[in-house]
Amino acid sequence: MSMVDVSEKPLVFREAKAKGTIKLKVETINKVKDGKIEKGDVFSLAKVAGILAAKKTSELVPLCHPLPLSTVDVKVRVVDESHLAVEATVKAIAKTGVEMEALVAVSAALLTVWDMTKQYEKDEKGQYPATTIGDIQILRKVKKG
Amino acid sequence: MSMVDVSEKPLVFREAKAKGTIKLKVETINKVKDGKIEKGDVFSLAKVAGILAAKKTSELVPLCHPLPLSTVDVKVRVVDESHLAVEATVKAIAKTGVEMEALVAVSAALLTVWDMTKQYEKDEKGQYPATTIGDIQILRKVKKG
Amino acid sequence: MSMVDVSEKPLVFREAKAKGTIKLKVETINKVKDGKIEKGDVFSLAKVAGILAAKKTSELVPLCHPLPLSTVDVKVRVVDESHLAVEATVKAIAKTGVEMEALVAVSAALLTVWDMTKQYEKDEKGQYPATTIGDIQILRKVKKG
Amino acid sequence: MSMVDVSEKPLVFREAKAKGTIKLKVETINKVKDGKIEKGDVFSLAKVAGILAAKKTSELVPLCHPLPLSTVDVKVRVVDESHLAVEATVKAIAKTGVEMEALVAVSAALLTVWDMTKQYEKDEKGQYPATTIGDIQILRKVKKG
Amino acid sequence: MSMVDVSEKPLVFREAKAKGTIKLKVETINKVKDGKIEKGDVFSLAKVAGILAAKKTSELVPLCHPLPLSTVDVKVRVVDESHLAVEATVKAIAKTGVEMEALVAVSAALLTVWDMTKQYEKDEKGQYPATTIGDIQILRKVKKG
Amino acid sequence: MSMVDVSEKPLVFREAKAKGTIKLKVETINKVKDGKIEKGDVFSLAKVAGILAAKKTSELVPLCHPLPLSTVDVKVRVVDESHLAVEATVKAIAKTGVEMEALVAVSAALLTVWDMTKQYEKDEKGQYPATTIGDIQILRKVKKG
Repeated sequence: MSMVDVSEKPLVFREAKAKGTIKLKVETINKVKDGKIEKGDVFSLAKVAGILAAKKTSELVPLCHPLPLSTVDVKVRVVDESHLAVEATVKAIAKTGVEMEALVAVSAALLTVWDMTKQYEKDEKGQYPATTIGDIQILRKVKKG
Repeated sequence: MSMVDVSEKPLVFREAKAKGTIKLKVETINKVKDGKIEKGDVFSLAKVAGILAAKKTSELVPLCHPLPLSTVDVKVRVVDESHLAVEATVKAIAKTGVEMEALVAVSAALLTVWDMTKQYEKDEKGQYPATTIGDIQILRKVKKG
Repeated sequence: MSMVDVSEKPLVFREAKAKGTIKLKVETINKVKDGKIEKGDVFSLAKVAGILAAKKTSELVPLCHPLPLSTVDVKVRVVDESHLAVEATVKAIAKTGVEMEALVAVSAALLTVWDMTKQYEKDEKGQYPATTIGDIQILRKVKKG
Repeated sequence: MSMVDVSEKPLVFREAKAKGTIKLKVETINKVKDGKIEKGDVFSLAKVAGILAAKKTSELVPLCHPLPLSTVDVKVRVVDESHLAVEATVKAIAKTGVEMEALVAVSAALLTVWDMTKQYEKDEKGQYPATTIGDIQILRKVKKG
Repeated sequence: MSMVDVSEKPLVFREAKAKGTIKLKVETINKVKDGKIEKGDVFSLAKVAGILAAKKTSELVPLCHPLPLSTVDVKVRVVDESHLAVEATVKAIAKTGVEMEALVAVSAALLTVWDMTKQYEKDEKGQYPATTIGDIQILRKVKKG
Repeated sequence: MSMVDVSEKPLVFREAKAKGTIKLKVETINKVKDGKIEKGDVFSLAKVAGILAAKKTSELVPLCHPLPLSTVDVKVRVVDESHLAVEATVKAIAKTGVEMEALVAVSAALLTVWDMTKQYEKDEKGQYPATTIGDIQILRKVKKG
């Protein structure tokens, strides 16, 4: 096991866009839209969590290289009555791609949504039968120059 | 926005089990099973990543409390010809539940699988049209005492 | 040099409240109030930064003990035409006080305000002659039980 | 909310110098000068704390970019009978300025001074009525090439 | 005290190889070889620990610069009936050498071996009279270009 | 692979003392003693590095539990004309021992000594033929109550 050796690779422009969704109860989605989540504004907190996590990618995914990210952009929006979607775009001038950084940003943002809404998702037994994070994918990977 | 104030809550036994899956190409799953992944053993690396990430939960999910985890156990297995599944169990004697820790462990383990297999998942355009992380759920939450 | 040995000290309720201010241009404060800061909502981002930093206190201040914080609450408000104030309250059942955690939260929140507003604070030479963080103090320290 | 996209910006020489002060009791300042602080040498510990914190800037200030710092220099000195001052100089060949790194270094150094001297600053009620961190400013920002 | 100022130094290829050993009981070494260590596979876990630690060097060694590592490779092998050896190779295009990164990787890998085997190393009084980490050295340092 | 499950274990007093040495050139040791090391005071910097690293043990050694350390004490002294020794004592009220924390503190302190003295240890080819970290052992482990 070892990190890929990127010593010989050129520094080029890299971009990756990832997405993912979280399924919540209809009532929870309504609370999110109406700004009624007791823990605070889900949109802004999920974005910050995604941005900060992207910068920690090489700590979380053991074989990733530390990369000098040029930007991390995280968007969070309600897509239908029971789903919230996150999209993250990461850019860097780097020797290796930034898809893991984008996926980490999406994951951390979705986990933060879960944490902020979990009190409304619990059933009478304290379980979360419906809440689901899914559809985490890379939408686009770009390498230029 | 603020962390829930758990000052008055008792220290009780907490347990949470979470799961999630990653969809890979049939050939990639075969490589994983045969130990042919160039970056190393997917099973052991995904487990370590999950364990280490669980301990960083309060850094990644902004409103989580730092918790003295008693154990983190991560299992990774092939479930069918195109899916790998991760299950994480976290325990603690704590004032608040450990479901976020279990979800973070599952997410980091799945992201590590992605990172280790991504070179086999790319299509001719360098994209990942099929690779998908999904079905991240809490299987069970326990609070005792 | 060494950390104070708290082995023999009892676990008791601890609370500390700290505050601090940042002096900005009148026009910058107006932009903050009107939600016109290009980098995003200053109030929510400063709060998250404060909460996350409080949890890192023992990494930042070398002789601090790692503490199981019960809550961190950060408030950010405009106090007059050229000042923004931050107040942070931290609680824990711990062997030692949480004043450093409250001060770290205030400092990180104020630094985040600076970072978000610095493009409006620069003069024609690219300098920041007026921007100032100050008045960082402990307002109250409580030890009970 | 998002990090500024610096993809297109050139790598140039950056330097920033920040300062700040902490107001302590006259007797505390004397103890610092005489090396009588029980927790250890305030000057060296504050410097290390500043250097280490500067390297964590992009973790602490959410929209900051991770930067390859060329150097961090922190100076700590007694300025008068009741004030200690910290100055931090940070340099990097980077796409964006290093003023936040310099401010973070100053803040962490001052917080470390507080932590090391707080036992002498407490009044009979266990409060810190006089201790104050202030005057945190950017003294100079340089961009060359 | 301050970090060396590397502003003026060129970015060149850097490589360093470090090694170290741990002395364990003959029976423990046999368990390691036979994959009978209850905590898991010592070889793969020690490697991951070494790789992850190398990336944290500038957090652990206060005056080290954050470096964009190109690769970290850690090898763990049984050298004789009572010794396990670790070798770590680190590469980077950087302004300063990567010997500290290689040494940190070796140290973390050896400490992880200790942690995984310590239950077999304890004597009847719960002490570890024989277990010893040693011979940590730089085998080779390269600077090219 | 998994962390030992300590859910059922009682919180008791734990203490561990570890030691280790670094072999340096006679001239380097003399510079250390005379305070002539350009990077700063080796004794104080090695101590801080050890204290901070002990608090990061569960990040560095993957299967370690996060522990609420009561104190970390690191001593650094010249033992003979070519050796410096580090001793670290760690205490906690915890469910598991603190020997790994003591060993991590010793290792980080010794690595910091290496980093601060390496410019004097290099031979004409830029190699370090003599510098060696060794004799890292647990001197004493205590469990009470």
